Amino acid sequence: MTTQQAKDEVELRERIDTLVGAIQTGDMDAVKTTFAPHVVSFDMGIPLRHLGAEAKWKNWEEVFTLYQLPIEYEVRDLTVLVDGDLAVVFAVNRISGIVVTGDKNEHWVRWTAAWQRIDGRWMVVHDQVSVPIYFPEGRAALDLTP
Amino acid sequence: MTTQQAKDEVELRERIDTLVGAIQTGDMDAVKTTFAPHVVSFDMGIPLRHLGAEAKWKNWEEVFTLYQLPIEYEVRDLTVLVDGDLAVVFAVNRISGIVVTGDKNEHWVRWTAAWQRIDGRWMVVHDQVSVPIYFPEGRAALDLTP
Repeated sequence: MTTQQAKDEVELRERIDTLVGAIQTGDMDAVKTTFAPHVVSFDMGIPLRHLGAEAKWKNWEEVFTLYQLPIEYEVRDLTVLVDGDLAVVFAVNRISGIVVTGDKNEHWVRWTAAWQRIDGRWMVVHDQVSVPIYFPEGRAALDLTP
Repeated sequence: MTTQQAKDEVELRERIDTLVGAIQTGDMDAVKTTFAPHVVSFDMGIPLRHLGAEAKWKNWEEVFTLYQLPIEYEVRDLTVLVDGDLAVVFAVNRISGIVVTGDKNEHWVRWTAAWQRIDGRWMVVHDQVSVPIYFPEGRAALDLTP
């Protein structure tokens, strides 16, 4: 790893820390600073693809409406790969909290995000967030732990 | 995009074409050439993470046992991002064919893969493959089309 890559990894981890803090507090303005305008998100809910930053923001707004704030949000076993102006990060993330019905909700999701350095700042240009499937019944595995 | 990046993108698209051909014909030897030994896969089935190339091969072997060969496999709207020795690709992929019960099966999945150039050859070091979820019922959305 070069000195530049080590420096970029630190910067990316800081960007992710900021995102985690924004999610915990439901801070939409801070969430918005993460995503490039043309981000393509393969997100938890339908459809297959969510095109553009506004679609991605809307998905986070729905989460912040569903949960009582603050939300518990944890990024575990984060791997950061970076070369030049491109980075890939992946981790298993835990979201947990009290939903509007009063029930406690908790699940672990797999998170992969591609970042590009745009005008000197790392921005998410693509992500995929999911849980696996129990086959053959086709139920989403929302109850797994790492 | 630099000349080197353009050249690398061509190479990555060729690697993906090879993988698609291997999947269509159930050619495990060719499938195996795609994955780095330490690949971390967030795959369609449980658990959350599949660690190492042998786990990933096993998942493809299960697909080849489930389907009658040849399988139809299509990679649509492929985006390739590359810088230095790191690349990210993403697409929506269609798998279709006759399963062992005799039924026709077809679904679209989201595919994200991180590649690194290792000893001069592009290898998948991480991937995530999934469908989104129908909320609130928690059913995997295996019937979507792009």
